[in-house]
Parts: sequence; structure tokens; C-alpha cells
Amino acid sequence: MSDPLSSWNDGPAKAAILDFVARVTGAGPEYVPAPQRIATFDNDGTLWAEQPLQTQFLFGRMLRAKLIAQEPELAQQQPFKAYVEQDMPAMKALGKLGLLEVAAREHAGATEEEFDRIARDWLATAHHPLLDRPFTRCVYRPQIELLDFLRAHDFKTYIVSGGGLDLMRAFAEDVYGIPPEQVIGSSLRTRFEIDGDGVAQLVKLPELHCFDDREAKAQNIALHIGRRPILAFGNSDGDLAMLRYVKTGSGPRLALLLHHDDAVREFAYDRDFFLSPLAEALDKAQDYGLTLVSMKQDWNSIFV
Amino acid sequence: MSDPLSSWNDGPAKAAILDFVARVTGAGPEYVPAPQRIATFDNDGTLWAEQPLQTQFLFGRMLRAKLIAQEPELAQQQPFKAYVEQDMPAMKALGKLGLLEVAAREHAGATEEEFDRIARDWLATAHHPLLDRPFTRCVYRPQIELLDFLRAHDFKTYIVSGGGLDLMRAFAEDVYGIPPEQVIGSSLRTRFEIDGDGVAQLVKLPELHCFDDREAKAQNIALHIGRRPILAFGNSDGDLAMLRYVKTGSGPRLALLLHHDDAVREFAYDRDFFLSPLAEALDKAQDYGLTLVSMKQDWNSIFV
Repeated sequence: MSDPLSSWNDGPAKAAILDFVARVTGAGPEYVPAPQRIATFDNDGTLWAEQPLQTQFLFGRMLRAKLIAQEPELAQQQPFKAYVEQDMPAMKALGKLGLLEVAAREHAGATEEEFDRIARDWLATAHHPLLDRPFTRCVYRPQIELLDFLRAHDFKTYIVSGGGLDLMRAFAEDVYGIPPEQVIGSSLRTRFEIDGDGVAQLVKLPELHCFDDREAKAQNIALHIGRRPILAFGNSDGDLAMLRYVKTGSGPRLALLLHHDDAVREFAYDRDFFLSPLAEALDKAQDYGLTLVSMKQDWNSIFV
Repeated sequence: MSDPLSSWNDGPAKAAILDFVARVTGAGPEYVPAPQRIATFDNDGTLWAEQPLQTQFLFGRMLRAKLIAQEPELAQQQPFKAYVEQDMPAMKALGKLGLLEVAAREHAGATEEEFDRIARDWLATAHHPLLDRPFTRCVYRPQIELLDFLRAHDFKTYIVSGGGLDLMRAFAEDVYGIPPEQVIGSSLRTRFEIDGDGVAQLVKLPELHCFDDREAKAQNIALHIGRRPILAFGNSDGDLAMLRYVKTGSGPRLALLLHHDDAVREFAYDRDFFLSPLAEALDKAQDYGLTLVSMKQDWNSIFV
């Protein structure tokens, strides 16, 4: 039989995955019924590349250019001024949440269907600035194999990401085989209205509804899924609450942490990535029972 | 072949359901691929009885008694005083949202797993005060048939209810065949914490996170599901935004409205039920293209 995880090198990470799936699906004492086989994956940096910036921000750049073309005075106002002038200290000072609030301004006014079209159109042609390939091909081959392998063993696979919910939904089904209802992410408030054609619409408002990061990831899993997953995979401190929530439940559990340590084939970074550092989770991985995955050691192929 | 909707009398409502399912699953121009076959159902008054009060409030009564036993001074403070004294005008003045805020106080402090045990223990023995049967047998047989019929045609069935999310999840899988991740409801805020045993817990706070009623039903469908359903079923004005959201999407759509008009076999009520009136939806059913279902005319059997 061919190896379903052929992009994974033999080593402790691959062995941990194979062993875990064998235990929860086999007839032994650790068997987990299929409906409880929930697996949650972070997206940016876990399923696809997130350097030099998460795709979300590159999508936002396009929306921002449109917005400033419509309202030129924004270019003179913060936080937009910082972007127009590429003022990195000012941009960093906004923090991840501040950046999301800018994104909220950029997304506002679109209905669900309009936003979906904008996102799909952009994804169809946009290229990653460093990897020189479409964003939807900056996806990690070993993770696609892992998602397929888990689903072949009756796992239900979810994305739980700080990224924008509707941007992810525009590609997650085609690229990861994950349907919209299994995508959890950051979201804006919406306004319900009946439009001029009598159609009920949800219009995005320029207000953050939920920033799905850190503790919110565990809280949103409870809200959306209502069962504690048995497997989780992340790559930053923003995933740590989810990894601990999953790992400390009763019964067999697997929490995986991807370390970007391959400067040749992808990027090498961890605690200094200001948007999404990996520090505490790396320092405490052993204490917390997290299984470290080294991109350099554990993956023999990176992209799809 | 036996009739999958044998508790439904022949008539316009049953015909509309059979016709709709034939159209969206047949090879004609209105075919809808299986992943888009999403159906959303209100719970209280749509899938099970909600008179004289939604089960939620009867569950709350038990929790309230426990809470007042622990903190007797609450009995002298509003809003608890109104309950202790059965002061109906004061209770009505709280409104549905006020009642939910009382429920929030009652639920606070429990972890997810603790709350689930409390809810399951209560449901295992509690009886409906008027129907003299367990709450889980106050479920409508025609709706169970409809849920099964839809799933047999590759629909994914969801609950979208103003009821408490975690109370519904404690029985929805057993009773309706609807798993926790397909239940959307009202929810409290939670606190993420690592308990004394090192286990990550989500503890309910006495603060409402979302009251899943009216426009919030459409907004939560977008948040949790991310596709506009093609079928929805409700029974009150609280469902109207969901029904219009579903009905006004493009392509074939079915929006059903249950009218409780059977005082002999169940209860007859609509616009005067203060907790969940049916008025605008009834008056505008024809304008809005809603298919009315008469409990008296359309159902030959009521309970499971």
C-alpha cells in the first residue's frame, strides 16, 4: 500500500500521528467513536505560508487601494496614512488587532455574496510576493496529506484561524476539502437588511465581531463545534490555548506544533515574527505535551 | 414504498415539501448539489412544544432553586424576587432578553462538561408540566419524519434557536439526530482557564454572548454555516428574519411556518404568546412566500 503521508519523513512526528490515529480508530481501549473525531487546524503558517505577511493583509492591501481611490482623504488619516507611507513603526504599533480593525474598514459595506466574489476574483490571479506562485499553491503538501489521511479515518477536519472567516471560506473547500461550515475565523459584525429587490442581505459593518486568536480559539471551538477536538495543529502562541484545550481533555489527544525552521525551502522564523510569534509554545512544548514538527526535518516536500 | 412523511396529511404543505425536495434533488434545472442542501429549523415550538413556557425556562427554574439555596439573599433581590414570588407582571416586564439574563446568572460558573452533565441529568427525569411526559418526548413526530426525509436526500439539518445552545446540544443528537456542531443557539460568554489539575476549561460567565433571535438567526447562520440555507422552518416572528433570508436567496427555496392551531392535541396560540409571538409572520406569510403549516390540518400525529 502506498504511504498516505509520503511527504512526511520517518521520525517522531510522523510516528506520533500514525500511532495516534491507529489508537483512536482501532478496537483497543483508546477507541474514539467517529463523531468525536474532531481535528482543528490553524490556517496561516500551519496549512499555508504566512511570510512576509499573512495573505489576509495582502488581500487587505488591494481592498485598501480601492477604498482610498473612493475616499482620497483617508490617505491623510491614521491608520491609513501609515500604510500609504509604508511607515513600519506606525504599522507595527497598531498591533495585530489594530491591523484587523483596518481590515474591518476595508471590508465594510459588502454583502456576503459580494465579498465572496471579490475574494474569489482576487485569489484567482494574486501571486505570493516572495514565493512567486498563487496563494492557493502556497499550501503545504504534507498538511493536505494529513487532512486527507484524517478524513479517511472518519475525522471531521476544521480550520480555526485568526484569519478572516469569509476570505478562508472562498478557497478552503477547493484547496483543503474543508466546507464553509467547518471554517472558524475572525469576523465582522453584520447588518441584516432587505435590499431594493426584496432580498434579505447581511452587510458587513466596519466593526470587529470576533478576533479568533488565543483564548478565543478555544471559546469559538466550544461555540461552533460543541465538542472538544481530539487533535489540533498550530504554529504560534496564538494557537496555544487551542492546543492546550485539546491536549488536556480526557482520553487520547494529539497536539502538534509546526516550527518554521527551513530557511532554504520556506522561511525560518519563530519568536521574532511580530504578527504571530512562536515563543511560549516553543519553550513549553515539552511541559504541555505538544508534538513538535520541524519543517526542515519532518517534511520532504513543502508545497503542493 | 412506505410514505416517509406518514404523519403529514395530504395537502398543500406536504405537497410543497415533496415537490421542493424532488426539484432540488432531481436532474432538472433546479438541481442543488448536496453540499448546498442546508436546512435550518427553529427548536422551541417548531421541533418540540413550547407551552406554557419554553423548556429552557423550566430548566432554569431548577438551576435557580439551586442558586438561591446557595445564596439566599438573592430571593430578596430583583429579578430573582419576581420569580420567587411568582410575580407575573414583573416577570413579563423583564422580557425575553431579561429572562435570558437571569438564565445567564443561573448557568454561570459551570464548565462545559459540568453543564452538559447537569442538563443531561435533568432531561433524564424532568416531565413536561402539562403534557405529562418527558420533555424529550414532547417532540413532534412529523418533524422527526421531515428531518429524516431531508437527510435521506443529503440535506444537512441544523437547529437555529433562541434556546440555550448547550441545553439543546445535550439532547439534539439523541432526539433529532442533529450533532452538536449543527446546533446554533443563544450562548453565554466564557472564561478560558487552566484548572488545578492542569486541564484547560471554559467556564460560563453570567453575561450573555448572543441572543439568537430575529436578525441574529440570519447573522449566526452566516457566521456558523457560511452558506444560505435552501430550506427553513420556524413558528414565530423570532424566525422571520431567518425565513426571509432563506426564502429570498436565488434558486429554489422553501420557508415553512408552523401555526399552533390545535387546542385539542397540543395548544392553540399565536400573537398573544408574550415570549414568542406569531403575528407579523402570519399576517405577511403570503407576501413573503412562506408556506403555512397548520398543526390541526396538516399533521395526523403530533408527538413521538
